[in-house]
Amino acid sequence: MAQKPSIPKGTRDFSPAEVAKRNYIIQKIQEQFQKFGFQPIETPSFENSETLMGKYGEEGDRLIFKILNSGDFLRKADKQAYEEQDSQKLTASISEKALRYDLTVPFARFVVQHRNELEFPFKRYQIQPVWRADRPQKGRFREFFQCDADVVGSTSLWQEVEFVQLYDAVFTALGLQGVTIKINNRKVLSGFAEVIGESDKLIDFTVALDKLDKIGEEGVKKEMQEKGISAEAIQKIQRVFDLKGDFSEKINVLKTILSTSEVGKKGIEELEFINNSIEALGLETAKLDLDVTLARGLNYYTGAIFEVSAPEKVQMGSIGGGGRYDDLTGIFGMSDVSGVGISFGLDRIYLVLEELDLFPETVSRNIEVLFINFGENESLYCLKAIKNLRNKGIAAELYPDEAKMKKQMNHANKRDIPFVVLAGAEEISNQKFTLKNMRSGEQSSVSMEELSAVLRNEE
Amino acid sequence: MAQKPSIPKGTRDFSPAEVAKRNYIIQKIQEQFQKFGFQPIETPSFENSETLMGKYGEEGDRLIFKILNSGDFLRKADKQAYEEQDSQKLTASISEKALRYDLTVPFARFVVQHRNELEFPFKRYQIQPVWRADRPQKGRFREFFQCDADVVGSTSLWQEVEFVQLYDAVFTALGLQGVTIKINNRKVLSGFAEVIGESDKLIDFTVALDKLDKIGEEGVKKEMQEKGISAEAIQKIQRVFDLKGDFSEKINVLKTILSTSEVGKKGIEELEFINNSIEALGLETAKLDLDVTLARGLNYYTGAIFEVSAPEKVQMGSIGGGGRYDDLTGIFGMSDVSGVGISFGLDRIYLVLEELDLFPETVSRNIEVLFINFGENESLYCLKAIKNLRNKGIAAELYPDEAKMKKQMNHANKRDIPFVVLAGAEEISNQKFTLKNMRSGEQSSVSMEELSAVLRNEE
Repeated sequence: MAQKPSIPKGTRDFSPAEVAKRNYIIQKIQEQFQKFGFQPIETPSFENSETLMGKYGEEGDRLIFKILNSGDFLRKADKQAYEEQDSQKLTASISEKALRYDLTVPFARFVVQHRNELEFPFKRYQIQPVWRADRPQKGRFREFFQCDADVVGSTSLWQEVEFVQLYDAVFTALGLQGVTIKINNRKVLSGFAEVIGESDKLIDFTVALDKLDKIGEEGVKKEMQEKGISAEAIQKIQRVFDLKGDFSEKINVLKTILSTSEVGKKGIEELEFINNSIEALGLETAKLDLDVTLARGLNYYTGAIFEVSAPEKVQMGSIGGGGRYDDLTGIFGMSDVSGVGISFGLDRIYLVLEELDLFPETVSRNIEVLFINFGENESLYCLKAIKNLRNKGIAAELYPDEAKMKKQMNHANKRDIPFVVLAGAEEISNQKFTLKNMRSGEQSSVSMEELSAVLRNEE
Repeated sequence: MAQKPSIPKGTRDFSPAEVAKRNYIIQKIQEQFQKFGFQPIETPSFENSETLMGKYGEEGDRLIFKILNSGDFLRKADKQAYEEQDSQKLTASISEKALRYDLTVPFARFVVQHRNELEFPFKRYQIQPVWRADRPQKGRFREFFQCDADVVGSTSLWQEVEFVQLYDAVFTALGLQGVTIKINNRKVLSGFAEVIGESDKLIDFTVALDKLDKIGEEGVKKEMQEKGISAEAIQKIQRVFDLKGDFSEKINVLKTILSTSEVGKKGIEELEFINNSIEALGLETAKLDLDVTLARGLNYYTGAIFEVSAPEKVQMGSIGGGGRYDDLTGIFGMSDVSGVGISFGLDRIYLVLEELDLFPETVSRNIEVLFINFGENESLYCLKAIKNLRNKGIAAELYPDEAKMKKQMNHANKRDIPFVVLAGAEEISNQKFTLKNMRSGEQSSVSMEELSAVLRNEE
């Protein structure tokens, strides 16, 4: 019986126009990755479950898609879990593989597994889908692409400088002016917790601070107090809430706030180095800003933290993020390997470019010309010309059936094909083609050479 | 505790060099797809199970990777199957989604689901991974890419002619000369079964015939007899085994063999049309050949059947295949839509190009130049030049640490970077760069302009 076809929630079909636009963004990102010296790797869509489980916290473990073992999977099922009908406990015994949840953990696994073949520092990029069993909602999907660039094996701050430039280069290449690259440093956050005497509450402190633009100063302070941070302690960092001005001005205030914290001063030094270098090198279209509230999964990052905001006129969350994590590969037994990387949010960048009408008109590749089908002999005449055009790089095709003229012209219109060629007995005897410009309606009789010249100019 | 990292059997990590080579092939295929008027679509990695199950036969159903439902999946488990510990029966109730097994069924689902948005004939291409729980072996993986081009909504034989040309165009673009595009027609196979009076044994007959190059004439005849086809019947098609000569010569023999079969004659007519058209249009590097033993999953195809063989000097199975299937979308309730399409075997094409050394030397994109790091000031001087080079499209990077000269030069050597720039205090004061050609060892002092000119010429 016929099924009414549908796709799983949170997943998407992409039409030709959508694929073309997505590939346009990916290509621009890729070009810059390569110019900056990053090389592509790809990892399998599914990993052994133990590679992924426990790496993203409890919530993450739940959101990982597990693949059911093939064959008689119950034969190896955990008997006790089976009797207790405990889904969670049963899972490990009936599912050995799981779909990639992000690109970072597979990358860490890759580095450790191939450590002897790699030359360090190793700069890789990776553009592949990931899967999360999140509740689907606007702009959040169960299958989506991540575009990551990371360096492992270098603690140099020039990497951070390079990543700021890389963000600038990509968004400039995409014609997206006015993005803000926000930067912070985990050490500065540690410094704050230290100077208020609440180092043991670092996480609670930063989670609250991270919400400043959502719940406001009073909200943050309330949350901090609820987490047991004293009003007196909070008072000590009042100046953090009052931070204003440009990067250097903020740095100057931080220097006084964190004057007693070694780790805090180290963080400031790093931020200053990055900012000074960027000032010397200049950015094309982006702006670098210091945002001391930025945390982004604090437990992960150990140095710089990045986040990119779309231009202010667009309502959109972050369109990129990243940072430095000092022990990327430790989970797989290779310690003391520092990593730093950034990610581009393909779906959100897509929405921003769409909203600002920044996709080039030519992005949806289409054929340049449709040849009308007047019958067998005429078709053969046309196919020879089509072959000639394709050899010159021009996309062309023959309407496959000897249908009514109107139907064939409609087909060209619906596909938005800019030119149509009509070649009947007369054209064949003169070795000519009637070329019709579908936009202007203009028609002309042209030779093979003229035909390819006109179409090549139009591309 | 540290885990020894590994990946699931049948899956692969791809190194930068491998990704570059794979992308090279994909790009060449894609370029031709586009020139021939095919447009890209993408579908989700997993589909609802009912979209896939039952579409590939019993064996196929077993080889489909199922995704375990999220959360407390046992809550909805089939109670009876659970008590009986029947894995197969239990599956449907604990798994709603499954990984794509090929690109054809998702494409059929796509066409039916989006029928109102599509303009027919619809020519799509799709290059995405598929997953099969096959036993991994040499050249057979559990995750691999398919590269498909199909047309739906046209019964015109010009499509078949176009696909032969498309194969020729792609393999020509890849520099792979001497491939053979083998063609057959399901109607010819039906004709054979008809003229020997064994139409009800069509499948057994063609399955046996398909093995001619593996088990030889006697083997095929033996298998046919085992399936209940009489020696007398087999005798009637002795001339099929003796078929020799070029395309037209074989056609002439077929005409006498199938003179009493209407369906057989129709098949011959189609083959002749395609061959005559291709002769008129010419092929660049491929050869078209008639192979009446070709079946390729006969139940699927209703007209033309294609298969591409690598050049004879390479030991490799087929590197592409396809055909016409008259009721692609019927399984999803949209009948009378004819489809015809071809597929490229990415992994095998890769192996063939590797064996014949046909990958261009420049395929692995790498940076053109590494700037040696002599300290902070020098690095900033270098980064300004690097930015300049990148703006001109040249991939360049700075060694991130002020390491020993030898270590930095080794890094350039190991990554096979063709040029190195050394810029110390003297170079800075002269606004120059010392450029070293890592192959020749030659060194020269150049200005910024000269530097980019040299590097641009090398690309």
